[in-house]
Amino acid sequence: PKLTISILVISETASRDPSTDQCIPALTKVISDLGSDNWSITSTCIIPDSIPKIQAAVLTAVAEDVNLIITSGGTGFAVKDVTPEAVSPLIEKHAPGLVHGMLAESLKVTPFAVMSRPVCGVRGKSLIITLPGSPKGAKENLEAVFKLLSHACLQASGGDSRQMHKGG
Amino acid sequence: PKLTISILVISETASRDPSTDQCIPALTKVISDLGSDNWSITSTCIIPDSIPKIQAAVLTAVAEDVNLIITSGGTGFAVKDVTPEAVSPLIEKHAPGLVHGMLAESLKVTPFAVMSRPVCGVRGKSLIITLPGSPKGAKENLEAVFKLLSHACLQASGGDSRQMHKGG
Amino acid sequence: PKLTISILVISETASRDPSTDQCIPALTKVISDLGSDNWSITSTCIIPDSIPKIQAAVLTAVAEDVNLIITSGGTGFAVKDVTPEAVSPLIEKHAPGLVHGMLAESLKVTPFAVMSRPVCGVRGKSLIITLPGSPKGAKENLEAVFKLLSHACLQASGGDSRQMHKGG
Ligand code: NA
Repeated sequence: PKLTISILVISETASRDPSTDQCIPALTKVISDLGSDNWSITSTCIIPDSIPKIQAAVLTAVAEDVNLIITSGGTGFAVKDVTPEAVSPLIEKHAPGLVHGMLAESLKVTPFAVMSRPVCGVRGKSLIITLPGSPKGAKENLEAVFKLLSHACLQASGGDSRQMHKGG
Repeated sequence: PKLTISILVISETASRDPSTDQCIPALTKVISDLGSDNWSITSTCIIPDSIPKIQAAVLTAVAEDVNLIITSGGTGFAVKDVTPEAVSPLIEKHAPGLVHGMLAESLKVTPFAVMSRPVCGVRGKSLIITLPGSPKGAKENLEAVFKLLSHACLQASGGDSRQMHKGG
Repeated sequence: PKLTISILVISETASRDPSTDQCIPALTKVISDLGSDNWSITSTCIIPDSIPKIQAAVLTAVAEDVNLIITSGGTGFAVKDVTPEAVSPLIEKHAPGLVHGMLAESLKVTPFAVMSRPVCGVRGKSLIITLPGSPKGAKENLEAVFKLLSHACLQASGGDSRQMHKGG
């Protein structure tokens, strides 16, 4: 069976007019290009910049044992940007290595990579990662770590990871 | 209008004898060289290694809506080094990307960069970053990220950031 | 006098059959190769993946003023992996620079480095670092930062660090 992905776009604008969203197609293409054999996108959702609404969407996906929950948007420094503050308290196991990997790879593309405030980690059987809201930034961040995520997700879901190269 | 900066030097020695401080001139030169058109240093202060005194100085600057609060010193491993412990609880939005950027750039100069314990993030309308206490380390860390900070500060202060390349 | 090290291997398997452990010899060799003049391993211990047992072992070493406490194992994404969750609440001073240094160096060797979830910091007079459980990963992570740890440990133990290149 394929690993499942839920994409949550966090955007006030796109939540009012979904036709403006460019993140879902950008991320769908990355997943299709790099992981169509192993991954299946089972839900997508557009959510306004609201801590309770972001948390509700994340917890819904966790309750469904989605393997990978990807958020896009709300990781900048504006007053409206609250995705890390919504997601961080939900994390049971923080993954600073994934944060490091996303930032290091993104820094190779642009010095503006340091302007993101990513959070990565596990809740329940789900791995959660937060990507920037620009389609380009989201794409680059996901490409940076995507090939490694199946291992993390298999481990988090309780699968046998003995054959895998393990980080811990 | 220019963005405002408050420099807080955290040093027992310099708090007793301000003439021994070399951080304020070092940081002033970086800001003058890299950002004199956009930035204005509106206050400098020398504070001993005391959590309540550091927090009071940071909160005073936050209350004045200073755009960028730079601390220098107290980020090492000695018993006296408490700047991250003073600043971290005040942060409302942590900025791991800026921490990563400072460390990655500093590592290009010296492996001892990893000996710093930086904290970066937003409280109110202010961006706070903690630099090492050595003038050389403080200078290198600030140079590493300074050109990016105006974007973060403009966002944090509520400015329109739509024209800017955004991290989130 | 030499700086002291306690090695704590976190492994369900090795805690039942110590002959299966390969981490203690791997780490002992790194310390012997890079630091035999300055460091002395004063205890080694194999502990199952249990938060209270890990915390008890760490606190025992802290109570003995061990300069450097190295854990190996339990930093992955599996349900059993709880070392960061055991160690993080014990940290009084977090050391993101050391985390960054371990991850950055490990990334030069393998992209799987981002799969680790390291925690580094000080409690009491002890510096604590968490390494992956694979002997290879543990070795690489320790090599990445070992030469810098004596400075951090001397500072944390209250020694005079004025002659040293300081991170803060
Ligand atoms: Na310093």
